[in-house]
Amino acid sequence: MKVAFTSDNIAGASDSVMAAIIAANQGDTMPYGNDDYTAQVTSMFAELFECDVDVFLVSTGTAANVLSLSAMTPPWGSVLCHSESHLLNDESSAPEFYTNGARLIGIEGADAKIDPIALKHSIHQKLGDVHSCQPSAVSISQVTEVGSLYSLGEIRAITDVAKSMNLPVHMDGARFANALVSLGCTPAEMTWKAGVDILSFGATKNGVMAAEAIVVFNKSLAKDLGFLRKRGGHLHSKMRLLASQMIAYLTDELWRINAEHANSMMALLQDGLKTVPGVTINTPAQANMLFCTLPTPMIEHLLAGGYAFYTGRWAEGVIRLVTSFRTPKEGVEAFIESARNFAEKNV
Amino acid sequence: MKVAFTSDNIAGASDSVMAAIIAANQGDTMPYGNDDYTAQVTSMFAELFECDVDVFLVSTGTAANVLSLSAMTPPWGSVLCHSESHLLNDESSAPEFYTNGARLIGIEGADAKIDPIALKHSIHQKLGDVHSCQPSAVSISQVTEVGSLYSLGEIRAITDVAKSMNLPVHMDGARFANALVSLGCTPAEMTWKAGVDILSFGATKNGVMAAEAIVVFNKSLAKDLGFLRKRGGHLHSKMRLLASQMIAYLTDELWRINAEHANSMMALLQDGLKTVPGVTINTPAQANMLFCTLPTPMIEHLLAGGYAFYTGRWAEGVIRLVTSFRTPKEGVEAFIESARNFAEKNV
Amino acid sequence: MKVAFTSDNIAGASDSVMAAIIAANQGDTMPYGNDDYTAQVTSMFAELFECDVDVFLVSTGTAANVLSLSAMTPPWGSVLCHSESHLLNDESSAPEFYTNGARLIGIEGADAKIDPIALKHSIHQKLGDVHSCQPSAVSISQVTEVGSLYSLGEIRAITDVAKSMNLPVHMDGARFANALVSLGCTPAEMTWKAGVDILSFGATKNGVMAAEAIVVFNKSLAKDLGFLRKRGGHLHSKMRLLASQMIAYLTDELWRINAEHANSMMALLQDGLKTVPGVTINTPAQANMLFCTLPTPMIEHLLAGGYAFYTGRWAEGVIRLVTSFRTPKEGVEAFIESARNFAEKNV
Amino acid sequence: MKVAFTSDNIAGASDSVMAAIIAANQGDTMPYGNDDYTAQVTSMFAELFECDVDVFLVSTGTAANVLSLSAMTPPWGSVLCHSESHLLNDESSAPEFYTNGARLIGIEGADAKIDPIALKHSIHQKLGDVHSCQPSAVSISQVTEVGSLYSLGEIRAITDVAKSMNLPVHMDGARFANALVSLGCTPAEMTWKAGVDILSFGATKNGVMAAEAIVVFNKSLAKDLGFLRKRGGHLHSKMRLLASQMIAYLTDELWRINAEHANSMMALLQDGLKTVPGVTINTPAQANMLFCTLPTPMIEHLLAGGYAFYTGRWAEGVIRLVTSFRTPKEGVEAFIESARNFAEKNV
Repeated sequence: MKVAFTSDNIAGASDSVMAAIIAANQGDTMPYGNDDYTAQVTSMFAELFECDVDVFLVSTGTAANVLSLSAMTPPWGSVLCHSESHLLNDESSAPEFYTNGARLIGIEGADAKIDPIALKHSIHQKLGDVHSCQPSAVSISQVTEVGSLYSLGEIRAITDVAKSMNLPVHMDGARFANALVSLGCTPAEMTWKAGVDILSFGATKNGVMAAEAIVVFNKSLAKDLGFLRKRGGHLHSKMRLLASQMIAYLTDELWRINAEHANSMMALLQDGLKTVPGVTINTPAQANMLFCTLPTPMIEHLLAGGYAFYTGRWAEGVIRLVTSFRTPKEGVEAFIESARNFAEKNV
Repeated sequence: MKVAFTSDNIAGASDSVMAAIIAANQGDTMPYGNDDYTAQVTSMFAELFECDVDVFLVSTGTAANVLSLSAMTPPWGSVLCHSESHLLNDESSAPEFYTNGARLIGIEGADAKIDPIALKHSIHQKLGDVHSCQPSAVSISQVTEVGSLYSLGEIRAITDVAKSMNLPVHMDGARFANALVSLGCTPAEMTWKAGVDILSFGATKNGVMAAEAIVVFNKSLAKDLGFLRKRGGHLHSKMRLLASQMIAYLTDELWRINAEHANSMMALLQDGLKTVPGVTINTPAQANMLFCTLPTPMIEHLLAGGYAFYTGRWAEGVIRLVTSFRTPKEGVEAFIESARNFAEKNV
Repeated sequence: MKVAFTSDNIAGASDSVMAAIIAANQGDTMPYGNDDYTAQVTSMFAELFECDVDVFLVSTGTAANVLSLSAMTPPWGSVLCHSESHLLNDESSAPEFYTNGARLIGIEGADAKIDPIALKHSIHQKLGDVHSCQPSAVSISQVTEVGSLYSLGEIRAITDVAKSMNLPVHMDGARFANALVSLGCTPAEMTWKAGVDILSFGATKNGVMAAEAIVVFNKSLAKDLGFLRKRGGHLHSKMRLLASQMIAYLTDELWRINAEHANSMMALLQDGLKTVPGVTINTPAQANMLFCTLPTPMIEHLLAGGYAFYTGRWAEGVIRLVTSFRTPKEGVEAFIESARNFAEKNV
Repeated sequence: MKVAFTSDNIAGASDSVMAAIIAANQGDTMPYGNDDYTAQVTSMFAELFECDVDVFLVSTGTAANVLSLSAMTPPWGSVLCHSESHLLNDESSAPEFYTNGARLIGIEGADAKIDPIALKHSIHQKLGDVHSCQPSAVSISQVTEVGSLYSLGEIRAITDVAKSMNLPVHMDGARFANALVSLGCTPAEMTWKAGVDILSFGATKNGVMAAEAIVVFNKSLAKDLGFLRKRGGHLHSKMRLLASQMIAYLTDELWRINAEHANSMMALLQDGLKTVPGVTINTPAQANMLFCTLPTPMIEHLLAGGYAFYTGRWAEGVIRLVTSFRTPKEGVEAFIESARNFAEKNV
């Protein structure tokens, strides 16, 4: 059995999500979020995060991220993020667009996690100098872009630096659920209790079709987001499409079940690959994404065998493997087996 | 039986659209439009419009409109549209945002249709003068915001003026299908054959959940749209959600069937109201939207009776009625009956 | 003797201004406004306006106007100004650029002065509606674009409406001194005492080469302007060039002397033209600018005679005449005489 | 005698420049560059550069730089410049503002000069990928920000890489004259003959008050600049102020005389400091700017002695020294002497 590890956005949505969309299709509903579905989503998030929150639904992760930033920085500000972050590398110039020209500053740090000392150093440069972009916000990715995780203490180390300079903190949670189940903490602990002000709560990669939530813990940052969302063309008229997906995703802990499956498939995959001669784990996968290095012939063998994954985008031999809520166990085992077979014959 | 005439965005989607979403949910699909569904959509549009087209799917009408504009004007340009247009009145400052600061210029004209002579006058002012926004594009709404239609000749009169100054023309087709079935012409005749360069092809208001297409006839205007869409955060990862809806909408002329129903319900409604004492038709409805004026007590009576529609936004007594692909005939008849009963007792 | 009434920007600068530039050229001075000249300018403005002010020097009137707006409105806001205002008609899309896409809304009113009732009506529409640009600031021109003036009571009527909705008020004072000497009030009375929050204090048209001041009375609006000015490329390194001009302009009431000359020349011109058969005064000139209507042959006669002024930009026969601090009395008299001679022979 | 080496923007302007401003102040002149002075400037640049050019005068270097960029890149593009460039470090977010959100990408290279191999590597990444900012233009500084120079061959190596990908090249010539006299080549050789498309021709730092020219060699890039300049608020009404300065600067090779003085003073300074024990030259000065490292007590001694220069902005002990057209030889000698005296007693 063949399987694709290309990304978690190649899978569709969970059955209960699709059922919820169908159910929400019945009857008339007021547009633009003035409906019961949307109100219910906000309530469910308040319960999930154990606090009062403002919620803005959008249909893409880019929108969630850049709208969040736009609520946090003036146009002459800078947003400090990791140099390998999705925000800096994979969102075109959407961050500049939505912030009216603020600048992303890439901070270094091992495993695609911001080094708090480097952050502190950067934040203190040229304060108040009109010639320099002024540090205005910090953004971290949880799960990171290389598949690692910030521990709660590591998040706090970042937000402490930010708070010392009164900078708000954004979390790009495109794979929020995968991080959460891996850390085994509560949603509150990984966010506002750790100093996060705004969260891009991703759902699309973990079992919905297209629904993301901007969850605002620091409510002073929420007042403009309704206007900003409309201005960006991201206010859906039939909001029930987004809201119904999110309700299903938050019901009966679908988010948890899906993430646990994806993570456990990755654990299986990683454990297997570790035992394959010639395979090097680049960064230990803590959630559902793994970067590892394989001999080029092994990569070619796997691709020829019908397995799909990204390669050729990084250093020689580096591949990225991502598991999803739908990844079949048999597919993972077959992949490992295929790699092992090749290794035993060739390495 | 009670019914809402609030807007055509309060209805959900046609059954075949929902079935298509469910079907598209199966299996893995490459993201960001690199999939067979999206390719099929482009083919279907080429067939529908009888010409080669570039197609960009987005999930909101605002996005379709303002991305279209952003491909047509420099930041120091102006986009000429009707002073009552949706673009000028109901999109926040999204047009300015996406065009990097170009200006909308409202042109007058009866029935919310641009007067070509007023357009010509406006276009010729201060050409080449760096102190003035330079006319750069023209945008018309078909159906207009008051429920009227441009005839093919009227479209051509506008585009002739535009072409004489080398200005591209955009059509806001949020209710494209409703206009088309009313005019009884081909999609090609109402667009590129009449001089339209880019079309916002609306589907959301006529039976899909959230899918709009930017259809580019003048392909020189298409080259930047992929970048502009991503920059705006409007590139969906699971594009199949949008593409499957649009495929269903274009299959077996669902768009036509839905629009014909909505229009025929409006015809029934308008014909009935014309015979109700005290009711004045403001602008004859040519598609599925009607503005009329009722005695205030009659409005209160209808609202109290459970009928829904917008009022209080315009002059005293003005109400807007919109029918959709789902509007029940019984509901229309009951509404007329209720108005008539009130009139007979009170007017 | 022939003379040009084209604009008050065709004259150069007063001698004392040029002398001040020369004097300021001596020695080394710290850049970017960190110099004694700039500090002195702020002190002089505080004295002139009898209150604490923040001052930002720039070299063009466009910069002063649009930077002022940028401190007052969010990108989804609207700035209400007269439909004939310079801001709306002669600044390209600089207002949209600097405000990151806010919209100018033209309000009607006689003599190019905003009608407070029309303003109030406009301000109250669609408040809080994310689909509509939200009224965010008001801007008035004093002198107006047709040469009229707001009385102190008329200014207060505008600012009262604005304040009732918590909107800040900007005054485009490109011809501030001309207005002031005409009204015979104090600078404080015409600005902050009348409810003005930010003033574009023009000097370029009244005897300096290139220096304008953004004078901020409502200091909460000043905090971002240093960053906004730099971001716009309007922070001069050799600020002494601007500051020395402004010091000379504020010294020994040069601004008053220059404005009184310009205004008295206009009074002479207007009084003379009133007695010329065939000449119609369109709007009575209250400062140094006059719109009047002449028979076309008379216009041709004057132009052929070497007099310069703008015509052909407005209705048939309308001309604009502007006097400056340098306009010679003999030139004014000769112009009237030439018009009269022509009228007596031809009208 | 004490002297300041803080920057070349602390000096005023040459006497002939001031005299030219005074002379230009006579009489009436049409505004906005529609005058003989401005026409003469364009002619003089055509002669200086031995080719047809379009010229846009502005009053700040920031404006010259960012307006140049705005003519070269779409909003989703990136401008490749050195990571230590002024553009990236000292212009706030003006580059993002004027380019509507394009991104600056810092490229490494010794002596603040872009490494062409690193440039080539960066340019070829993710071409056509809508998720990534697309390389759109290259900008180099001549003189660089550490006082080094690109040789003609080094410029060509950069522009060759750029041209191979059809990217236009901008030169930030804030200290253009200083570079030119040091290389001993013609203006044409250092610009369009070496592949430069647009030049920020700096004059402010080398003897004028406030005048910079955007000189466009690749005229296809010039068509929008008039609109862009106005939109930015950088079109002066009394353009004669800028034009007269530039005419004086270009007359009788004032630019050369001033630059030769500044450079020779730097040569004297550098030669002297090389012989002072404890002083390290960081980057050999090739024009009029030098970075060197001194023992901290020596820095304190010099500052206490009344000498001015920037320190504390870089690594421990690093100071920046800049000479200007006005730097007195006696001041340079005294500075060296003071350093030497201290060194002999203390090091």
